[in-house]
Amino acid sequence: MTANVPVIRFLDEERCRALLATASVGRVAAVVNGVPHVVPVNFVLVDGDVVFRSGSGTKLHAALQEQPVSFEVDRIDEATQTGWSVLVSGTASVVSEPDVLGRAELGSLEMWAPGTRDEVVRVRSDLVSGREISRP
Amino acid sequence: MTANVPVIRFLDEERCRALLATASVGRVAAVVNGVPHVVPVNFVLVDGDVVFRSGSGTKLHAALQEQPVSFEVDRIDEATQTGWSVLVSGTASVVSEPDVLGRAELGSLEMWAPGTRDEVVRVRSDLVSGREISRP
Repeated sequence: MTANVPVIRFLDEERCRALLATASVGRVAAVVNGVPHVVPVNFVLVDGDVVFRSGSGTKLHAALQEQPVSFEVDRIDEATQTGWSVLVSGTASVVSEPDVLGRAELGSLEMWAPGTRDEVVRVRSDLVSGREISRP
Repeated sequence: MTANVPVIRFLDEERCRALLATASVGRVAAVVNGVPHVVPVNFVLVDGDVVFRSGSGTKLHAALQEQPVSFEVDRIDEATQTGWSVLVSGTASVVSEPDVLGRAELGSLEMWAPGTRDEVVRVRSDLVSGREISRP
């Protein structure tokens, strides 16, 4: 409660996008029957948008195509109680363009569990925000 | 694509609650103006419910009291592409009971950035689900 108390500050979009590019796992959030649903996925960036695999038969997958979606990435150091988080919000769509699919495959968008995630989803990064907790 | 391919399996509630108890940081998700909003927070468990601090002036804080809320915890090893995630969904309320507040303070629910999170919120763990990606 004396010096070196952590403070929260908001990050500008450029900084948020730079932090987003350092991560390979994030959490996709969609509204399923009025309830926010959150699931971690690995992802790549394609033209600044978030691209990941999704199981086509799931409730989450259906919700992704109907409503606004968010994608969260963070890195928290529990010991020092510092870290950052970035939230991308936008519309989601199933990717079918060969160009985007090709670039997604070239990235690290491997299938962690083959057979369970058989479509590729892209979240447009319409709104990117973030914040940081640091010790000044 | 040969042996040792990771598989996803769903976890029972007992296992989910045990994993939840190993974490101190999770992500609260609420619907703000139709868009899922996700923010990492540190938390403690009180009678199996998730309890954390929240800034009373924020849009997220307002949303917490109006709609179903979810809370996500995960641990992912990017190198081995294995890990688990647990999702708690339920209603949220501002905590005012001295007993709960006292136990929350006794836990590790410190304020990371004093002055910015001035209320304590409890998410009832009505629905707890989880899954694991492992290499058999």
